[in-house]
Amino acid sequence: MRRLVLLTDFGGNDWFVGVLKGVMATLAPKAAILDLSHDIPPGDIRAGAFNLWAAFRYFPKGSIFVAVVDPGVGGSRDPLLVTANGRFFLGPDNGLLSWATAGDPGRTIRILSNPKYRMPEVSGTFHGRDVFAPAAAHLSRGVKPAAFGKAKPALVELPEMAWTLQPEGLAGEVIHIDRFGNAITSIPGSDLGRIAQGAKAASIGRRNFPIKSFYAEVPEGQPLCLVGSTGLVELAINGGDAAKSFRIRRGDRVRIR
Amino acid sequence: MRRLVLLTDFGGNDWFVGVLKGVMATLAPKAAILDLSHDIPPGDIRAGAFNLWAAFRYFPKGSIFVAVVDPGVGGSRDPLLVTANGRFFLGPDNGLLSWATAGDPGRTIRILSNPKYRMPEVSGTFHGRDVFAPAAAHLSRGVKPAAFGKAKPALVELPEMAWTLQPEGLAGEVIHIDRFGNAITSIPGSDLGRIAQGAKAASIGRRNFPIKSFYAEVPEGQPLCLVGSTGLVELAINGGDAAKSFRIRRGDRVRIR
Amino acid sequence: MRRLVLLTDFGGNDWFVGVLKGVMATLAPKAAILDLSHDIPPGDIRAGAFNLWAAFRYFPKGSIFVAVVDPGVGGSRDPLLVTANGRFFLGPDNGLLSWATAGDPGRTIRILSNPKYRMPEVSGTFHGRDVFAPAAAHLSRGVKPAAFGKAKPALVELPEMAWTLQPEGLAGEVIHIDRFGNAITSIPGSDLGRIAQGAKAASIGRRNFPIKSFYAEVPEGQPLCLVGSTGLVELAINGGDAAKSFRIRRGDRVRIR
Repeated sequence: MRRLVLLTDFGGNDWFVGVLKGVMATLAPKAAILDLSHDIPPGDIRAGAFNLWAAFRYFPKGSIFVAVVDPGVGGSRDPLLVTANGRFFLGPDNGLLSWATAGDPGRTIRILSNPKYRMPEVSGTFHGRDVFAPAAAHLSRGVKPAAFGKAKPALVELPEMAWTLQPEGLAGEVIHIDRFGNAITSIPGSDLGRIAQGAKAASIGRRNFPIKSFYAEVPEGQPLCLVGSTGLVELAINGGDAAKSFRIRRGDRVRIR
Repeated sequence: MRRLVLLTDFGGNDWFVGVLKGVMATLAPKAAILDLSHDIPPGDIRAGAFNLWAAFRYFPKGSIFVAVVDPGVGGSRDPLLVTANGRFFLGPDNGLLSWATAGDPGRTIRILSNPKYRMPEVSGTFHGRDVFAPAAAHLSRGVKPAAFGKAKPALVELPEMAWTLQPEGLAGEVIHIDRFGNAITSIPGSDLGRIAQGAKAASIGRRNFPIKSFYAEVPEGQPLCLVGSTGLVELAINGGDAAKSFRIRRGDRVRIR
Repeated sequence: MRRLVLLTDFGGNDWFVGVLKGVMATLAPKAAILDLSHDIPPGDIRAGAFNLWAAFRYFPKGSIFVAVVDPGVGGSRDPLLVTANGRFFLGPDNGLLSWATAGDPGRTIRILSNPKYRMPEVSGTFHGRDVFAPAAAHLSRGVKPAAFGKAKPALVELPEMAWTLQPEGLAGEVIHIDRFGNAITSIPGSDLGRIAQGAKAASIGRRNFPIKSFYAEVPEGQPLCLVGSTGLVELAINGGDAAKSFRIRRGDRVRIR
């Protein structure tokens, strides 16, 4: 029995998450269900895609991810089953699955169209319950990907996390603010050492963040730049909230020199 | 082993939810525990009842629901075990269980009074831990409902979700605002087609919501009315937050004509 | 297979909690994972320690607690495995584990230094993923505590929850505000009856809270003092939020006379 991992923007106030689990528990009684996150900001496809990308590799091979950030539900976007990177990903074709499933030349994409693996009646507003959860449950019980629907050559891709090497240093952008107020950038830490050898600080506007290895290397309350746990360069304040203190937002330009 | 499903107003800041799970794991080590929601607003019995009603039918028959929204804890309200609609429901007798257990002529109600299935000492403030969780764990291991305490002929009932057919159309009220700002009404969608044939829009005050089938049928930012995933009529903004934008509140009167 | 119980300040917005679970599910595929809380305020070691203390005794003997509130991650604080009170506790040596593991003369403390039970590469910012989760997974599969690293004679201790008996009554402080706005104090309820016999009310400044046994003993909206479910004296408003109404904060002095 494969593991089912849930990522949604459903929050905890309503019955939506519970219903996904109930549907899965009904169709695959022995399935182990794990929550990845349900607090993706409503409709924020990019935040969902980033969470999925940052987490998927730590789950066992064969895990089944059910990702639902689906503002276009009921419209023309396809519901997908993607196999890539040794795992299965179910979710709407709106970019949500594009980062986590990238980089695998053997990636396959199918449309979840077989009514046999959907709820008998499919609502226009809750495909998590009516399409994705039932398909994931059946998949966990051994139904083959090909049985769910026909293949599709491509899926909607979010713009890649981008950075450029410019005369005055590396340039990228803030792609996620985490709970602690750390600003995660699009610049891979592996490139920091290799390309920007001798680099001393990152900056946003006129604000400088000296490059360090861990938070406590600077006094409490002081800013720093380090390679975070995702492998990406991150701007932080030791013991503080960098995003709040310096009003950093997703999309802000970051330079390293 | 039956499945234990938890619904509370305990939130995530404190140890309350964890303790429920610890008690259950101690008494029924193999029990599978699922969270329905723990973010019911503190003491909001009606929101808890609505969540339970909206979700229970999607969980397997035989599931055991532990529902704790219990502002009267320690006072005179009875702790109940209700069997109805193919499932078990444990919670305080304050209306919380009334909607989910309605409509079953075979419904039975018992008072959880047998000290054998409670914690040795019962506090005056946390019956989730001391009464409901132990009873649910024992029930999941096969203890018969009759062993928990004597039968009770009725339970506290919340007013039914109501709507009326009036000369100028269907009238109901907003009964829940969900995380996305959708306003769920007391008007069943099945009646919309049957009774209000030819109806074109819902309204709150002077604000109109044209009747559609899914969100993306109107341009982004535009209001609409549709039958939501609970089967109830719902007022929404495509890609927006209708409740915030139009200051809709629970209890607001809704008309369809 | 022992049960893994998680307590962190990671919140639900990010992938951090999911990654802990993924790592554990990879290394200990049959492990049962339970969430205690992930909403400890960021970096609030004391709140984490209090949650762990209030909850641990309700989990089965042999349970493995993974507690990560770790503002000093990557610095000089040791990652620990503590065995005490019939359970296992993994977390940073910053006081977080001190209350839950106190009171057991057989308590043992080890440093999680064996690279065999860590991730191949250990980041400077996420020891939950790289040190604590892998160690807990291996422990759940039967690896002996001694294999994880050498013993340490003591750990960082938070100041004990304190109260004093003074001529004018018992004195203590507010140590936790719960979701319902109840102010939990450092004064044990067991001492209330024994030492402060005849006591009639608790007070913060000039505000009085008459001593009762459960919330509904006073009319709705009225303040009271009672022994809460943790066994500690607690200040509350029946059906209200005492902390918000009276601006009570952690650390406020409380008197009982």
